[in-house]
Amino acid sequence: MDNKKIKRSDDYSLWYNNLVKNADLAEHSAVKGCMVIKPYGYAIWEKMQQELDRMFKATGHVNAYFPLFVPKSLFEAEEKNAEGFAKECAIVTHYRLKTDPDNKGKLIVDPEAKLEEELIVRPTSEAIIWNTYKNWIQSYRDLPILINQWANVVRWEMRTRLFLRTAEFLWQEGHTAHATKEEAMEETRKMLDVYAEFAETFLAIPVIKGRKTENERFAGADDTFCIEGLMQDGKALQMGTSHFLGQNFAKAFDVQFAGKDGKRDFVWATSWGVSTRLMGALIMAHSDDDGLVLPPTIAPVQVVIVPIYRSDEEFTKVNNVALDIKKRLEKQNLSVKYDNRDTHKPGWKFNEYELKGVPIRIAIGPRDVDNQCVEIARRDTKEKQSLSNVDLEHKIPHLLEQMQKNIYDKALSFRDQNIHSVNTYSEFKEKLEHPGGFISAHWDGTGETENRIKEETKATIRCIPLNASIEKGTCIYSGKPSAQRVLFAKAY
Amino acid sequence: MDNKKIKRSDDYSLWYNNLVKNADLAEHSAVKGCMVIKPYGYAIWEKMQQELDRMFKATGHVNAYFPLFVPKSLFEAEEKNAEGFAKECAIVTHYRLKTDPDNKGKLIVDPEAKLEEELIVRPTSEAIIWNTYKNWIQSYRDLPILINQWANVVRWEMRTRLFLRTAEFLWQEGHTAHATKEEAMEETRKMLDVYAEFAETFLAIPVIKGRKTENERFAGADDTFCIEGLMQDGKALQMGTSHFLGQNFAKAFDVQFAGKDGKRDFVWATSWGVSTRLMGALIMAHSDDDGLVLPPTIAPVQVVIVPIYRSDEEFTKVNNVALDIKKRLEKQNLSVKYDNRDTHKPGWKFNEYELKGVPIRIAIGPRDVDNQCVEIARRDTKEKQSLSNVDLEHKIPHLLEQMQKNIYDKALSFRDQNIHSVNTYSEFKEKLEHPGGFISAHWDGTGETENRIKEETKATIRCIPLNASIEKGTCIYSGKPSAQRVLFAKAY
Repeated sequence: MDNKKIKRSDDYSLWYNNLVKNADLAEHSAVKGCMVIKPYGYAIWEKMQQELDRMFKATGHVNAYFPLFVPKSLFEAEEKNAEGFAKECAIVTHYRLKTDPDNKGKLIVDPEAKLEEELIVRPTSEAIIWNTYKNWIQSYRDLPILINQWANVVRWEMRTRLFLRTAEFLWQEGHTAHATKEEAMEETRKMLDVYAEFAETFLAIPVIKGRKTENERFAGADDTFCIEGLMQDGKALQMGTSHFLGQNFAKAFDVQFAGKDGKRDFVWATSWGVSTRLMGALIMAHSDDDGLVLPPTIAPVQVVIVPIYRSDEEFTKVNNVALDIKKRLEKQNLSVKYDNRDTHKPGWKFNEYELKGVPIRIAIGPRDVDNQCVEIARRDTKEKQSLSNVDLEHKIPHLLEQMQKNIYDKALSFRDQNIHSVNTYSEFKEKLEHPGGFISAHWDGTGETENRIKEETKATIRCIPLNASIEKGTCIYSGKPSAQRVLFAKAY
Repeated sequence: MDNKKIKRSDDYSLWYNNLVKNADLAEHSAVKGCMVIKPYGYAIWEKMQQELDRMFKATGHVNAYFPLFVPKSLFEAEEKNAEGFAKECAIVTHYRLKTDPDNKGKLIVDPEAKLEEELIVRPTSEAIIWNTYKNWIQSYRDLPILINQWANVVRWEMRTRLFLRTAEFLWQEGHTAHATKEEAMEETRKMLDVYAEFAETFLAIPVIKGRKTENERFAGADDTFCIEGLMQDGKALQMGTSHFLGQNFAKAFDVQFAGKDGKRDFVWATSWGVSTRLMGALIMAHSDDDGLVLPPTIAPVQVVIVPIYRSDEEFTKVNNVALDIKKRLEKQNLSVKYDNRDTHKPGWKFNEYELKGVPIRIAIGPRDVDNQCVEIARRDTKEKQSLSNVDLEHKIPHLLEQMQKNIYDKALSFRDQNIHSVNTYSEFKEKLEHPGGFISAHWDGTGETENRIKEETKATIRCIPLNASIEKGTCIYSGKPSAQRVLFAKAY
């Protein structure tokens, strides 16, 4: 393939890679599987962080920071968790380099600086955190603990894709401790709701809330809940998970508390996380063949102003109006960029801001100034219109709201059109191949059937949807009884 | 020593450790040399981050994220930098654990999962970043690059102290690329000024801006600038550094650009950073024997309201007024906590908020309600006064401003009283031991003399101060000519 514009219909995967690269979001680094998040991509991630952090704090959580490293003996304490992550751990074994005696200017690992105990670079922090909570919890008065951590984690992946699956990624991980099972379960569900609300209102991506099957659960959890989004190629993407950890970690680290009645019991736990993977979801859910389409709430630049002129005189005329508009829009708390560079032509700028998904472009030429109007182009529909400059600072926020809704509605409509109810395995396989999407089908509840279907079709059970109508039936694969339809899909 | 309150004059170091622990700021973790930053400590760090981030963005910088790991071959490319950090590197050598065949439930490093090339956990990111910039820079149009990164770094330290020196710490590192030497030097100095302004106006710590001697320079820098603060025990603390890296990294990674005239040249670089070490500075600069003293700008809770009551009836009376005051103060963008817990007595709460450095405490009893007043206690001077409730929401912000200034002035006065000019080596040693502080003395400019003085007295040259009056003299140690006085001190 040459470097020409790749359309989604040509090769969705290549389209995605090119978009991430061309829109300056991220790139591969010299470290296998690790990415560099470029400033524009990071600015989007920062907006996500700010909003999530606000939501976490509004629900009573505080931030803290725990070590990057987990001593092997702690890592292996919760056996299921350890088993689940053992195959993808980066391991620190030495703490010093020394000069290579055979190779001037080069360094080698100093064999004398071998650690007594290896350190695992955290793939997730339950072990180190529960080992810490052990010292913080004596009685019910010390509970609940509602802590979140923003951090980097490492899971050694063989096949990586920018944002979707990288060896190192950025995330937040909430780790809470509770006196009762009910309270821990309530927290698990509450944070699932926070994620769903964030995805829908902020990222404009409709999600299905559900419960994972036992096969797909987080290693060490008693129950895993998730939000699942649908990408434009018909594949599902897990956008966030919230785990009810039961007393597993409390037992592994012997974390007990004295209740009001003086009785001792193990502490109940949850953990929940979303990561830079959300960047992949955002990109794939909305973007088109011309580039990113960013919901206004998450766009680092919401409005770009491009002056159109042929002479210095025209520039002066246009420039004054542009600066005035910028000031008025910024007063409305909008993020506005005025691109008055004379090194690039308007056409080049139009393409650039389309590629970068800036929601509204305002172009102003000398004739617009004469007519007291501006040309508005919205990124989502590509519609252009001429708007009077009068009261523009109130029309633009309104238009951005409309766009946010439109982007969400479009994704919702696509998602809803791509949930296919099937009653036979042949229909299942047919729909899965074309058009794809979520396949709603009866399943007998066994891991065995789930695995067979996965082997034969590559589809996994994305979730057992919550809030779904309960309808009994028979498993499409085994013919055994089923209590409820579940959602299958191919997934990222 | 028993667990009784340790005073600064008893044992400054123990006082510091106890304060960090008792005020719930941080604690040691199960990983040697790594700390857990607890929620209250992290909340202070978040306030620092927010303000610094705002200042970086206001000076044209953007954030990005680069990998945690540095392949050994990149790490060793800039030889001085590599040499400087080689002895304190955590090294990842393997990427998988496996079940221990001899020990059920235990894991061992899988010898078959040895990396072809070892990965260094970043002690600083020049190497990985300049290897990336190489691909971003072709011409002068690609310059300057003004990027900052918020990240964790690891430097294997044998002797650690919470916040001041830990194996893993949090920091920000700015890495900029420029077309000219002048521009890079201007950036280096500009960021030094940003750090100084942050330290003085936000942390209320007066700092001395200066240049490091060659011995004390960052490994790989042509010039290192620093801000130095003075702690209450008379020791100096380096609070931030800004490095002029010359073309060293550009040459090591072959990063060249084509200038306006078409000529190719190596790119000029800077890097600059502050870390969670600033937490140590903040704690040691202002706190007293009763606990933290936080400047109002950095305090997570600026005002705490404690109700005083003996009956339900009294509580109702006091509660209404307290809630009203809270609302009025929050409208002024103050961070207010209303501690109406009935599980703790007022006296306990008073001690707790003194320990945690909450700037203003408002106590309200039934008689205060009758008299339409409240009792105010300010943390810095311990003064109490009765204030009319009328217009309280405007008096409190004013008082907080006064306190911010008072805390700074106190630290400034202490610092200025503890800069001692000496003209002989015996006077130098005398002053260094008692009372300590900065010793301003003539030095012959050689690393040899510097090292000798360090060996004999443990004092290092903290910096060659900028903006100082230039006064010729003779070196206190060698008697050779000296162009300017420099500042010596014992340091953290």
